[in-house]
Amino acid sequence: MAHKWVYLFRDGNGSQKELLGGKGAGLAEMTRAGMPVPPGFTITTESCNSYYDNGKQFPEGLWDQAMEALKDVEKAMDKKFGNAQNPLLVSVRSGAKFSMPGMMDTILNLGLNDTTVQGIINLTKNERFAYDAYRRFIQMYGNVVLNINKDAFEHELEVLKALVGPNAKDTDLSADQLKQLVATYKKIVQDKTGQPFPEEPVDQLKGAVEAVFASWNNDRAIVYRRMNKISDALGTAVNVQSMVFGNMGDDCGTGVAFSRDPSNGENVLYGEYLPNAQGEDVVAGIRTPHPISEMENDPAFPGVYAQFAAIAKQLEQHYQDVQDMEFTIEKGRLFMLQTRNGKRTGPAAVKISVDLVKEGVIDEKTALQRIPADDLNQLLLPRVSANAKKTILATGLAGSPGAAVGQVVFTAEEAEERGNAGDKVILVRKETSPEDLRGMVAAQGILTAFGGKTSHAAVVARGMGKCCIVGAGAIRISKDDSGFTVDGTDIVVKKGDWITLDVDSIEGRVLLGKVDTIDPEMSGDFAQIMEWSDKYRTLGVRTNADTPQDARKAREFGAAGIGLCRTEHMFFEGNRIDVVREMIVADNLDDRKQALAKLLPYQKEDFVGIFQAMDGFPVTIRTLDPPLHEFLPHESAEIHELAEKLGVSFDKLNGRIESLRESNPMLGFRGCRLGIQYPEITEMQARAIFQAAIEVKKAGVHVEPEIMIPLVSDLNEFRLQREIVDRVAKEEGVAEAGVTYLVGTMIELPRAALLADKIAEQAEFFSFGTNDLTQTTFGLSRDDSGKFLPMYVEKKILKDDPFQVLDRDGVGQLVQIGTERGRKTNPNLKVGICGEHGGEPSSVMFCHEVGMNYVSCSPYRVPVARLAAAQAALGDTVRDK
Amino acid sequence: MAHKWVYLFRDGNGSQKELLGGKGAGLAEMTRAGMPVPPGFTITTESCNSYYDNGKQFPEGLWDQAMEALKDVEKAMDKKFGNAQNPLLVSVRSGAKFSMPGMMDTILNLGLNDTTVQGIINLTKNERFAYDAYRRFIQMYGNVVLNINKDAFEHELEVLKALVGPNAKDTDLSADQLKQLVATYKKIVQDKTGQPFPEEPVDQLKGAVEAVFASWNNDRAIVYRRMNKISDALGTAVNVQSMVFGNMGDDCGTGVAFSRDPSNGENVLYGEYLPNAQGEDVVAGIRTPHPISEMENDPAFPGVYAQFAAIAKQLEQHYQDVQDMEFTIEKGRLFMLQTRNGKRTGPAAVKISVDLVKEGVIDEKTALQRIPADDLNQLLLPRVSANAKKTILATGLAGSPGAAVGQVVFTAEEAEERGNAGDKVILVRKETSPEDLRGMVAAQGILTAFGGKTSHAAVVARGMGKCCIVGAGAIRISKDDSGFTVDGTDIVVKKGDWITLDVDSIEGRVLLGKVDTIDPEMSGDFAQIMEWSDKYRTLGVRTNADTPQDARKAREFGAAGIGLCRTEHMFFEGNRIDVVREMIVADNLDDRKQALAKLLPYQKEDFVGIFQAMDGFPVTIRTLDPPLHEFLPHESAEIHELAEKLGVSFDKLNGRIESLRESNPMLGFRGCRLGIQYPEITEMQARAIFQAAIEVKKAGVHVEPEIMIPLVSDLNEFRLQREIVDRVAKEEGVAEAGVTYLVGTMIELPRAALLADKIAEQAEFFSFGTNDLTQTTFGLSRDDSGKFLPMYVEKKILKDDPFQVLDRDGVGQLVQIGTERGRKTNPNLKVGICGEHGGEPSSVMFCHEVGMNYVSCSPYRVPVARLAAAQAALGDTVRDK
Repeated sequence: MAHKWVYLFRDGNGSQKELLGGKGAGLAEMTRAGMPVPPGFTITTESCNSYYDNGKQFPEGLWDQAMEALKDVEKAMDKKFGNAQNPLLVSVRSGAKFSMPGMMDTILNLGLNDTTVQGIINLTKNERFAYDAYRRFIQMYGNVVLNINKDAFEHELEVLKALVGPNAKDTDLSADQLKQLVATYKKIVQDKTGQPFPEEPVDQLKGAVEAVFASWNNDRAIVYRRMNKISDALGTAVNVQSMVFGNMGDDCGTGVAFSRDPSNGENVLYGEYLPNAQGEDVVAGIRTPHPISEMENDPAFPGVYAQFAAIAKQLEQHYQDVQDMEFTIEKGRLFMLQTRNGKRTGPAAVKISVDLVKEGVIDEKTALQRIPADDLNQLLLPRVSANAKKTILATGLAGSPGAAVGQVVFTAEEAEERGNAGDKVILVRKETSPEDLRGMVAAQGILTAFGGKTSHAAVVARGMGKCCIVGAGAIRISKDDSGFTVDGTDIVVKKGDWITLDVDSIEGRVLLGKVDTIDPEMSGDFAQIMEWSDKYRTLGVRTNADTPQDARKAREFGAAGIGLCRTEHMFFEGNRIDVVREMIVADNLDDRKQALAKLLPYQKEDFVGIFQAMDGFPVTIRTLDPPLHEFLPHESAEIHELAEKLGVSFDKLNGRIESLRESNPMLGFRGCRLGIQYPEITEMQARAIFQAAIEVKKAGVHVEPEIMIPLVSDLNEFRLQREIVDRVAKEEGVAEAGVTYLVGTMIELPRAALLADKIAEQAEFFSFGTNDLTQTTFGLSRDDSGKFLPMYVEKKILKDDPFQVLDRDGVGQLVQIGTERGRKTNPNLKVGICGEHGGEPSSVMFCHEVGMNYVSCSPYRVPVARLAAAQAALGDTVRDK
Repeated sequence: MAHKWVYLFRDGNGSQKELLGGKGAGLAEMTRAGMPVPPGFTITTESCNSYYDNGKQFPEGLWDQAMEALKDVEKAMDKKFGNAQNPLLVSVRSGAKFSMPGMMDTILNLGLNDTTVQGIINLTKNERFAYDAYRRFIQMYGNVVLNINKDAFEHELEVLKALVGPNAKDTDLSADQLKQLVATYKKIVQDKTGQPFPEEPVDQLKGAVEAVFASWNNDRAIVYRRMNKISDALGTAVNVQSMVFGNMGDDCGTGVAFSRDPSNGENVLYGEYLPNAQGEDVVAGIRTPHPISEMENDPAFPGVYAQFAAIAKQLEQHYQDVQDMEFTIEKGRLFMLQTRNGKRTGPAAVKISVDLVKEGVIDEKTALQRIPADDLNQLLLPRVSANAKKTILATGLAGSPGAAVGQVVFTAEEAEERGNAGDKVILVRKETSPEDLRGMVAAQGILTAFGGKTSHAAVVARGMGKCCIVGAGAIRISKDDSGFTVDGTDIVVKKGDWITLDVDSIEGRVLLGKVDTIDPEMSGDFAQIMEWSDKYRTLGVRTNADTPQDARKAREFGAAGIGLCRTEHMFFEGNRIDVVREMIVADNLDDRKQALAKLLPYQKEDFVGIFQAMDGFPVTIRTLDPPLHEFLPHESAEIHELAEKLGVSFDKLNGRIESLRESNPMLGFRGCRLGIQYPEITEMQARAIFQAAIEVKKAGVHVEPEIMIPLVSDLNEFRLQREIVDRVAKEEGVAEAGVTYLVGTMIELPRAALLADKIAEQAEFFSFGTNDLTQTTFGLSRDDSGKFLPMYVEKKILKDDPFQVLDRDGVGQLVQIGTERGRKTNPNLKVGICGEHGGEPSSVMFCHEVGMNYVSCSPYRVPVARLAAAQAALGDTVRDK
């Protein structure tokens, strides 16, 4: 028997992606499931490979089998290829195993010629449509198959339009003019190729199939494969499918629908249809389509709605997921053109997954794997109602996601005053500084004209889970703080005017006025998904939290402990900053110890609050980390003020501030380097931690302090710091009080990962600080990367922004090395991650694979991490929707 | 037969370090070689271990053997332990296999008691000496053996001195007062221990031996062993040796001498002696010693000089190296107290090594291994004569080593003017900037009050091989540039006054006036050592050079190619900086290309010069690397000036400068990130390189350009840059011109090392940029590390400054990983190093071990690298003198 090069859709199935390509296998699967798919056939990927092996000749038998299949299609459609009355037209599409944008896409309406165009006119009663389709076919074919530059065709089209009028559009051309254009186009083909345009449909088909094969090896496709590591040996299949028309009369139509509502997940058909129209008419928006529900009682389409609804259910059952379907009705006959899993919002994804489990369609595990973990965030924050009317004033960066409605104020003082009085305000600033903290707390949301995702405003707002837009560059705040204007518009927003902030994970939009928002929903389906997640995950989830409030919020979201508590964030609160500054400016040990003694009760109080909030769970506290100059003022006036407060001369204070300035603060005097130079700081912090732990322990709180030494690059550094902690523990009688504690380190420098075996001799836990580890591994400052990193991602030099998605290739190697070597020395080593990656799903999966004990992330990412951890345990994650 | 616990010196030998300890083995070896060593014996390390195994009891037989040995010593010395007329006194010293500062050092004069002290008085005719020795013995014994706090003794001494006078010194105490002190000390011992001071010499000895054993397990010794990875199981030996006295009369004396002159290597005895004196008298400097040569004809010591000279020769032959010896003459009898390999200057090391080969004492390989490679530097630079009289005004950091004499000037203009007129000037500045370049070229040396080893002044001066001191903080330049003062002194140095700079590898000294200097000597013994080095080394040595002058200088020093040519250093020369700034400030592609077109001929000219200078050798050229803001002015006035020059507004220019400012420039928009954002820069540079190569090739120069892409972290970055280089090569007809080139990358980021297998798919060579790799691996900015890194080295948190000595543990791991993975992909990959470590001996050894092809270093380090490479190939280096 001859080799089988051609498969009718009904002969194949969904598992044959290798042979039939992704598209061909999908069409075969739908056909096999009994769906009314326009009939057609697939020429296999093997044919393509054989074609190349044979010096670009079709293999023996291919064409005969194709012609045979075409006959089958003619029969099924009751049309004839090349027939003048009732012509069969087909589409020709490439389709490799993996979708490849570099390759030929589609040729539509193949089979049109001067004869068959008459048949289309006959069938559609629309001469203009027929000739428009014909001239488009020639242009597409001329370009894709015959390699004629598009410009040649476009030029003639422009000439013709110019004759009609100065601003004429394509749609202003009459049927006759389009007919004339067809003739012109044919002449172009003759001139450019020395051959007439192929009138014979079978020749057209042959040319199109060869063009698909050729597109497998065009430059773009080769580059794409190289970049995506797709083998050149796979080859592409060719799909030949009969065209159907929704514009042949009133018993025709076209539509698009979801099997469930993709915005909220409700189990109803959702979509629209347009009678006597083609798919592009829906897109073009010339006529308003009808809601799909109206089709049920539309006399033009008896029974079609019921048939479609049944098919939708059937497809949903078959694919075990919500379907996004395109259909056409040709003379009362329903054809399914496409179905794919439907994109949906986070809330819909949750509801649909839970419902499908209830309906017995999928099991719990599948339900978990269906929800892109990142989308859970949409359920945790207030959000702007999808259906609300919006006027976008400006866009900016997503400082912190969510929604907020309030009246505009421009100073932190006013925000504090009005906010505390119960008014809803939005604090609008060029940028914020530590002095604005109280105003930020009192505001509903924060909007800044400058700054990036790591600016003060963004970092603090994320910490508070408060909606924030930063870097909204179009906003111009008036000098007298009376209002702001928006570049490129006439809009003026005055102090006291209402605005709404609408921030997703990608960008923030400033909306005019009060816009309806939807509050988060933490029970019901969401709770169900969380329950299932916890059932399957093996990875612990903690939170990064610096305050009791954050800690409580994170517990609500299911955090089992704190993975990173940054002691220095507390330094800015209230009047402590003065004491902190006093400590930094001290130029001798006694003065420094005196200032530290004042700081001790504050720190203790902080830790008491946090331990209480995290009763029953471990709390990892990092000792002082940032460069000291971050705590000092840099403006002359502020320095004068501080000098007066501290009772030192301006020159002396300024000198000290200058001496702390650094060329590269990221790589400077920070982390444990501070505690080694000034052991008394570590001592004070350890004392505050232990005193707090003993106090709450006495009050019945279960407390597990884990003290974390930052920026360690060598065992000796860790040992020196650990000695201080252990000594203070003895002095404070920690053991006697029945409190147990661990001392560990952040692994955030390449050297620490490489020397993890050594460091683990003394460290009881590791927490990977992947923010800094990414900076040092790449030699890339996050603060400065804005100049080129977006371009890197856009040009695919890097697959993802490594500050968002953990770079497995480089940083991941170090995480793995660090974990393995650390555990080799100390098999009981607790290992976690506390960089921002700890809340990013694919990074969480990596942490699971590496065998970490837990991930730690900001409170609002905790549910995301729980789900992602479950998905990781189930062996797969949902990488796109 | 009983186990042998005790070895007489004459029974052991130098190979028994494990059993006798290092010191014991040395004494045995000298004795065995027939040297007149004061007789004694060693209690073995096994004894110590056995002592601990036996619950701190001497093993069976030990004490008997010790008493037996003591008799032997008495006999040899013709003295008696405990005898009232002619008492034998001994020293007791610990001595483990490895020298251990944590352990007990020495107890001298053991055997003194109220009886024997009379014998000493009798022998020395010096009652004061005898009682001083006695009271010191009690204090030392009391402290070390009996664990009595020193303060108790010191207190009594102070009380006694107070009686003598308000500022009385130890030496003001009379014999009677010392005798009284002995009584007081004995009372302290009685009070503190409840026992009388042991009068019986044998008891004293027993106590001392036990104290040595105990010191093996004191805290300091344990910590030291832990830090230095010395096994606890080695144990320590105890050396008991008879004391000899050089102060028993006119036929007695003491001295110190080298077997050759350690300052210049001449083959003459070098040293001094002091009649009727103890070793400490020489140290105390109370009397002026005589040159050793005078001893030859000193009637007090007939034949002693000849005996000593013969012994010196013999020791030199025995140890095959120059000896540094201590001796004592007791009643005309010569005793060798100590001999060790003598420290020497670099020039002496070279001469001595070559001479010893000529004399047939050592072979070439040994000669090479004898010279600390770093010391070669002393031969390559002018240096201040060792014997010249010096007044040190101030010290600073070693910006660039050497010596320079000149008149003080304070501005670059004056330096240029007077320097070009033939005057010798030293440019003294607070700090320097690129504008000072011409003045620096014209000056003999540079002195700055501020800045570190990587400041502009230091970097530029090192590049020029010009003597430079930076950060001489005590220097205060007057506001009117009329002179400078020196903190803490009354000295004023006026403009035009002469000063001398004297800089070694560690620090720089500013000397008052003109001081004699010695010019470098490149032939003779130095040339011989270089010839032998080249014979044995397998590692190539290139240079880092940015100019034809540097390249030529490096060739003189034996560099075989350039490993790093930084294109940007040329950007500052002449008027080019204006064009560079124009290029940077351009806000569109056309303007940038225009500026680049102007820059092209300059760059080409640079490369022509360098290729000519390096005829026959490869030249590695790095494409643009530093952040662009380094080329821009930052002072308002300068910005105004530049804005005018460029014909743009101040605001626009200032805005551009602001936009290029970075939080962490080290990790910012630099390296290949520039060339990827602005491919036209890489294109221009490639074009300049190829045009230059083709031009010189035509003129008969052998040229091998190697183009190096900096700061690569991913293959994609490298690929994009390589594509540009390869395209330009085609466009310029490089292949047709018969020029071959390589394209490679700097491995200076941890990620690049980890992904070296990928990067080697496209790269033809790797050059490890260990400066930046150290910064990123440690997360440590070199510019900012001054605040804590010296403290780290001092506290031994890190063994060495990792910017000076390559950190094998961390950075070295990455270098090894990068080399191995790169070679796995591409076995022909050329691998080198171009960080400053390339000229540091132990780092060179590491590069050899890793299997690199070459090291590259600054011109003046080339000889050091050649010798270090030879030492590496010979399997050992000289780590200290």
